[in-house]
Amino acid sequence: MSLIVVGSVAYDGVETPHGKVDRMLGGAATYIALAASYFTPVKVVAVVGDDFDQVDIDLLASRHIDLTGLERVPGGKTFFWAGVYSADMNDRTTLRTDLNVFADFNPKLPESYRSEPYLFLGNIQPALQRSVRAQMNGVKLTGGDTMNYWISDFRGELLETIKQWDFLLINDGEARQLSGEYNLRSAAAKVQAMGPGTLVIKRGEYGAILFHGGRHFMAPGYLLETVFDPTGAGDCFAGGFIGYLAGRGLDLSESKLDFAELRRAVIYGSVMGSFCCEKFGVDRFRTLTRQEIDARYTEFQDCTGF
Amino acid sequence: MSLIVVGSVAYDGVETPHGKVDRMLGGAATYIALAASYFTPVKVVAVVGDDFDQVDIDLLASRHIDLTGLERVPGGKTFFWAGVYSADMNDRTTLRTDLNVFADFNPKLPESYRSEPYLFLGNIQPALQRSVRAQMNGVKLTGGDTMNYWISDFRGELLETIKQWDFLLINDGEARQLSGEYNLRSAAAKVQAMGPGTLVIKRGEYGAILFHGGRHFMAPGYLLETVFDPTGAGDCFAGGFIGYLAGRGLDLSESKLDFAELRRAVIYGSVMGSFCCEKFGVDRFRTLTRQEIDARYTEFQDCTGF
Repeated sequence: MSLIVVGSVAYDGVETPHGKVDRMLGGAATYIALAASYFTPVKVVAVVGDDFDQVDIDLLASRHIDLTGLERVPGGKTFFWAGVYSADMNDRTTLRTDLNVFADFNPKLPESYRSEPYLFLGNIQPALQRSVRAQMNGVKLTGGDTMNYWISDFRGELLETIKQWDFLLINDGEARQLSGEYNLRSAAAKVQAMGPGTLVIKRGEYGAILFHGGRHFMAPGYLLETVFDPTGAGDCFAGGFIGYLAGRGLDLSESKLDFAELRRAVIYGSVMGSFCCEKFGVDRFRTLTRQEIDARYTEFQDCTGF
Repeated sequence: MSLIVVGSVAYDGVETPHGKVDRMLGGAATYIALAASYFTPVKVVAVVGDDFDQVDIDLLASRHIDLTGLERVPGGKTFFWAGVYSADMNDRTTLRTDLNVFADFNPKLPESYRSEPYLFLGNIQPALQRSVRAQMNGVKLTGGDTMNYWISDFRGELLETIKQWDFLLINDGEARQLSGEYNLRSAAAKVQAMGPGTLVIKRGEYGAILFHGGRHFMAPGYLLETVFDPTGAGDCFAGGFIGYLAGRGLDLSESKLDFAELRRAVIYGSVMGSFCCEKFGVDRFRTLTRQEIDARYTEFQDCTGF
C-alpha cells in the first residue's frame, strides 16, 4: 500500500549562518518523499527539466522511491529557488524563484499509481491538487499542504479542493489567514468545518498542534543542538506524518481511528523535521536510519512525558 | 514549611483587545504568591504605600498569604505600572512606570520568616535578592527571576547572586542575553554553569523548557480559547512551579531529586500561567479552586501524552 506524493522537485540555493550551497536537490515533494520513505513505499508525481542530475535520481531511488511519475521535459530547466536565512533562522528572504518547467506542471498519474490508497498533495495550485485526486480510484486518505498565495488569491478554488480532504497541514500564519481567527483553537474549528476533519498546525521550532474531532494534541519541536538549515523541515514533518499513517494502514474516519496512532504520526513528523535541519538540504537523508528515527522518537517521550 | 516570596506588590493599568482597567492589583510578588498559595503556605515580603486598599489585603488574606512582611510606608504611594498590549498580545508597550515606594525597597525579613526552607526572589535588584537570602538561616531551596536590565547593566552583581541559587526562571530572550548563546540548549548549559543547576526557560504561549543536569523537559503552553490579559502569566508560572516543589517538601540536590516531580512542577507552572490569562489581572484567583487546577493538569496529560 503506497503513498502518492505530488509536488515540486527542484534545485535550491540556500544560505544560512552555517554556510552556503549554490545548487542542491530540493522541492517539497523531494523532502516529503524522502521522509515518508522510512515508513511506507512512496511514488512521486513531479516534473523536472533535462538538467536534472542522475545523482539526485540515484538518491531518491536509494530510498526505493518510485519515480515512474517523474516527468522529464526535454530542453526544460528544473524549478530553481534561492533564499537566505536571517541570523536566528526564523526568517528567510527569497532571492530568486525560476519556476521553469514547474510553471506548466499538469500532473498526470501513471496507471500504476491510480489505485493506491494514500495521497499527499504538496503545495501546488488547488485546481491541480483536485485534478490529481480525481485521477485516483478508491483513495482512502487524502491530505496536503497549501500556502498564503492560494489562500488569498484562489480562495474559492482552494475551499472546493480541501473540502474533499481528510487532513490539512499548514502553519499557524496560514491557519489564521484561512480561518480569519487569530486564536488557534478557534481557527482550527473553522478550518475543520471546511472539510479536513484532521488539521495539523505547524509552529516551526515550537512544534505542532494536531486537531481531530473535538480533541487536540501538542507536540514540541525537538531541541536541536545546532540548526544547520531549516529548508524542508515542514515538508519532512508532513512526510513523517503521512508516512507513518500509510505505513500503519490507517485511515482517519471517526469510527475506526485510534487517536493514539494519530499522535504518534505527529511525533514522527516532528522527528523527521528535526533530522532535516541537521545538515544542508537533503544531506541528512543520505545516512539517516530507521534506528536513529526510533531513538529520537524515544527521546521525545523522555522530553515530554510526565 | 512555608515559601517566602519577595518582589513587587503594585497597581497596574492594563489595556488589551478585550478591555481596559485603569487600576488593579498587580506586581510580581502578588501573582507569584497567589499562584503558589494553592500548593503551600506563602509569606510575602514587599512594600506598598498607604494608598494600598484593604480589599486587596483581603484578597491575599483569603488565600492565607502571610503579610507580616508587607511593609506599608506612611505617606507613600504604591508602585504603579501601566501598559497596552498589541492586537495579538505578544507585545506590550509600557505607558507608565512610577516606582514610588518601590524605589527604596530594602527587604527586611520578619523574624518569623527567617527559618523557612523555600525562597523565591522575584525580579528586583540582584544585590537586594542576595541580601534577602543572607537573612535566612537554613534555606533549603532558593531561586528566582531577573530581567534584561540587570543582565546588561548589573551583570557582575547578578552573577554573584545567582551562583547561590538552585534554580532560575527566565524567558528565552533573557537566557540568550545572559549566556550570549542563541541556541537554547547551548544557552542553558552556560547558565547552569553559572550556578543554578535547574533552569526553566519560559517561552510565553509556547510553554517552557526545564533543564536539569544533562536532561530537559518541554511543556507546551495551554491552548486557551481566549487570552484575556497575559499580565502576570510568567509570575503565575513561577508561583505554580515553586509552590508545587515547596508543597511536596522537595529540594533539587542531585542525590535526592525525583526528576518526575520536577516535570510536574513545570506543568503546574503552565497550568497556573494559563488560568492567569483567563481574566483581567488577578481576577481569576478570586474563584479558582484546586479542583480546577488538577482538572487542567489532567488536560495537559491528555494533550501531550503519546
